Amino acid sequence: MSVIYQRVALVGLGLIASSMAHAMRRAGLAGHIAGTARSAETRQIALEIGLCDSVAETAAEAVRDADLVVLAVPVGAMGTLASEIAPHLKPGATLTDVGSVKQAVIDAVGPHVPEGVHFVPAHPLAGTEHSGPRAGFAELFENRWCLLVPAEGSDEAAVERLAELWHAMGSRVDRMDAAHHDLVLAVTSHAPHLIAYTMVGVADDLGRVTDSEVIQYSAAGFRDFTRIAASDPTMWRDVFLTNRDATLEILGRFTEELFALQRAIRTGDGEMLHDYFTRTRAIRRGIIEAGQDTDAPDFGRLPKPGKD
Amino acid sequence: MSVIYQRVALVGLGLIASSMAHAMRRAGLAGHIAGTARSAETRQIALEIGLCDSVAETAAEAVRDADLVVLAVPVGAMGTLASEIAPHLKPGATLTDVGSVKQAVIDAVGPHVPEGVHFVPAHPLAGTEHSGPRAGFAELFENRWCLLVPAEGSDEAAVERLAELWHAMGSRVDRMDAAHHDLVLAVTSHAPHLIAYTMVGVADDLGRVTDSEVIQYSAAGFRDFTRIAASDPTMWRDVFLTNRDATLEILGRFTEELFALQRAIRTGDGEMLHDYFTRTRAIRRGIIEAGQDTDAPDFGRLPKPGKD
Repeated sequence: MSVIYQRVALVGLGLIASSMAHAMRRAGLAGHIAGTARSAETRQIALEIGLCDSVAETAAEAVRDADLVVLAVPVGAMGTLASEIAPHLKPGATLTDVGSVKQAVIDAVGPHVPEGVHFVPAHPLAGTEHSGPRAGFAELFENRWCLLVPAEGSDEAAVERLAELWHAMGSRVDRMDAAHHDLVLAVTSHAPHLIAYTMVGVADDLGRVTDSEVIQYSAAGFRDFTRIAASDPTMWRDVFLTNRDATLEILGRFTEELFALQRAIRTGDGEMLHDYFTRTRAIRRGIIEAGQDTDAPDFGRLPKPGKD
Repeated sequence: MSVIYQRVALVGLGLIASSMAHAMRRAGLAGHIAGTARSAETRQIALEIGLCDSVAETAAEAVRDADLVVLAVPVGAMGTLASEIAPHLKPGATLTDVGSVKQAVIDAVGPHVPEGVHFVPAHPLAGTEHSGPRAGFAELFENRWCLLVPAEGSDEAAVERLAELWHAMGSRVDRMDAAHHDLVLAVTSHAPHLIAYTMVGVADDLGRVTDSEVIQYSAAGFRDFTRIAASDPTMWRDVFLTNRDATLEILGRFTEELFALQRAIRTGDGEMLHDYFTRTRAIRRGIIEAGQDTDAPDFGRLPKPGKD
């Protein structure tokens, strides 16, 4: 594969940016990768593991001369960051981000983008419950979707080139407008995360069942929620605060539906429950057929050797 | 390993019973395994794949002369089944079950147990989203807990022998009283399942986001809910109807907590959200340290080759 951007700047070196670094290097997609992070510890780790070709002390320094600048920080930090780097962006450069919310990023970053710089917001739908510069791996984006959310009148060549990069890192690429993106993600990601956090919080908080019981007996379903609820707290705080309306709308629908199912349990309406649970099975089949999850039982987790 | 029961009867041949058959055979724990199921198709499959040493047409026939009888049918079917087999149970035999709810099984089965038969309710905390006689595998119980719920005054030798069987199939074994079991499982299993079913139902039902979008973009968190929501509808209907009070209690707590988090989102209380999400991470660490889940990112699911 050939170089797509001569110089790429990764601002923020968490799971997504570090995975991008690995994926770009594996395929030779960038001439030079400059990285930076606010935390000195993160910059130090990036140096130690040789994550980037250079590690800059400040974002302003990292983005200098870059053909592609990737904002990979929590959504709530994007606006301030954009105002810091704006004077240092190269004319003709592409500015993108990897935030999980798009309208809020556009509102926060858009006003700072200098004339002649192409702003193409993006969101790779990939991740794990791990975070930080050591969490990245080159395969993270393989067969996962990356949604591009270009504004009307964006430079088509810049959008195409960014799409090419994501393709070359293994992603499928689609385009969507910001409002629809935020609604779709509220359904497929933000509401499920809040629900998982809530269920884990309830279990932790319940006086009559000990944490040790919750932990030991978690294999009956609960442990899957804990994986999601182990995701990065800062990133997720910002997601909920910045995709507030769509998330609250979906949570409202969720509560309504939960109450209907609770009523069915209370009144003993087995038929309603059975019909409901049969319908939800079909969605799972669709996800497996679309190649978005494994069909191996229990995600293919293998039993571990006994410890007692 | 040596034979623990000369003759075992498995009544119902779904995921749990078929896994028990594989696990008992692998370790030579049963002299003869007789199986039966209500559905002729299931019995036919069991014959075809050689799941048991013999397949009987009726439960009454299967349990004859058995030293251990395992009721492995949905919780709602246990009472009727117990009344059918009761006259055919061998004196001195042990009768057990693998139901996910214990008080309801004790209430439904207990009155039918003849004098001289030892009734030892049990619940292996293991499963996958697959069901039926082909879904079983010998490793299902390895390192998973099996909870025994013997009544007061149970025959200790019978309880010990059943514990020995579960140990020999790879399980850790603990004892618990029925009410506490049902509460613990409401937290670690029943409420999480209902919540997952609900979230998947909401996504399926939402007019403004298509099923195809929900499916394609599910890797952002939602797909984990769909695995749980693909579990057997009949089994789960019965779980909710028979563990109604504990499940509704936990769902009530869940809703209360969800409302508090929704309010934090609405009012922009980022500190509350961040603290909450930090606390829930600790539970995940506990589960991994207890050997009840893998620490591999994203459950160790590997990316699949691209399809587009």
